[in-house]
Amino acid sequence: MDRNVFKIDKLPTVRRLPAYLHILRQLARCDEKFVSSAFLAEKLNIEPILVRKDFELTRVAGTPRVGYSISGLIASIEEFLGWGEDLDAILVGVGQLGASILGYRELMDFRLRILAGFDSDPEKVGTAVHGVPVFAVTRLEELLGRLRARLAILTVPSADAQNITDLLVSSGIRGIWNYTSENIVVPADVITQKEDLASGLAVLCVKMSRNMPSPL
Amino acid sequence: MDRNVFKIDKLPTVRRLPAYLHILRQLARCDEKFVSSAFLAEKLNIEPILVRKDFELTRVAGTPRVGYSISGLIASIEEFLGWGEDLDAILVGVGQLGASILGYRELMDFRLRILAGFDSDPEKVGTAVHGVPVFAVTRLEELLGRLRARLAILTVPSADAQNITDLLVSSGIRGIWNYTSENIVVPADVITQKEDLASGLAVLCVKMSRNMPSPL
Repeated sequence: MDRNVFKIDKLPTVRRLPAYLHILRQLARCDEKFVSSAFLAEKLNIEPILVRKDFELTRVAGTPRVGYSISGLIASIEEFLGWGEDLDAILVGVGQLGASILGYRELMDFRLRILAGFDSDPEKVGTAVHGVPVFAVTRLEELLGRLRARLAILTVPSADAQNITDLLVSSGIRGIWNYTSENIVVPADVITQKEDLASGLAVLCVKMSRNMPSPL
Repeated sequence: MDRNVFKIDKLPTVRRLPAYLHILRQLARCDEKFVSSAFLAEKLNIEPILVRKDFELTRVAGTPRVGYSISGLIASIEEFLGWGEDLDAILVGVGQLGASILGYRELMDFRLRILAGFDSDPEKVGTAVHGVPVFAVTRLEELLGRLRARLAILTVPSADAQNITDLLVSSGIRGIWNYTSENIVVPADVITQKEDLASGLAVLCVKMSRNMPSPL
């Protein structure tokens, strides 16, 4: 695939890929070999045509009356997302949100490995949260040099977001998954993804006010 | 606005509206009157043309060299989202994720009022989490009759998701914000919005692998 032609208007498709992957893996565990776009559409509560369009991005073709190869789709989606191998990450800010991410099992399914948590609270340092060891945030630079994670999950209070970001960037982090409400500033070669819980609420409210069904 | 022409491909715009609202309110608090699409684009790290297209949906027009009226945009976005008045909700499942949502201040900015939490853990029942009282899940039907919330936030273990959903629906809930990994089944007149943390991770990974900048 020519990676340069990837367009931003494909991002809704990208957002749906993990949900497909989740269902496809369930089917694979039950020894299913093929799946129809209609089946997946019903599961995700979207139109079958949208499923077929989404899968064009993965370059897997379905066969009429047989459907899509489940193992083919899984491999193709994993390759597209770069999730075929473990994705090493750290998490900074082990508060309630940080802890709930450490315990979010579905993320582990996608080969996300959170190697370490960091927090400034001495009560948390030295403990393990959902099996992930928590270190003092003052050791961030030192430990990042050793851990070689490229991805950081940022769940600190908003007031600390930019300071911690600067430290992460100078320590070699190349992607920041930002759960704070700050619009953090990073160099051009660092990628950020801002999560905003209010986004989902906005979509829900618009759908409720227009009485639309449930697609993403 | 003709609500029926609202199309699903506008949902990426809807997802960005809370972020605009957040910035616009900050500006309004600083007594700013006008804002340019270039300013907002830089804040959100997207192209100015995308900001202008997003605002077409709100039917607010900018004035060349003056910009958009901040109060006009705020009112229009709030009206579009139905966020001009309080949005009453309940939350079921006061675990780490549920508790972190109860403490997520930005959601309160958007007039979301979580009136009550419900949990099956007797240790939690009778307490308040971030100021929200927690009741036994067995009292869901009884209390929903009194609270008249139309929206429920579902943060229970996945195994309980469908049972609780059925109870919510029969108790009059019309919108479910689903944080479980289950694809819950609801009647046609109930709206669901499934949140999947892996969606954001997918977008981040695709952007990292293609070295794209940071737009949503």
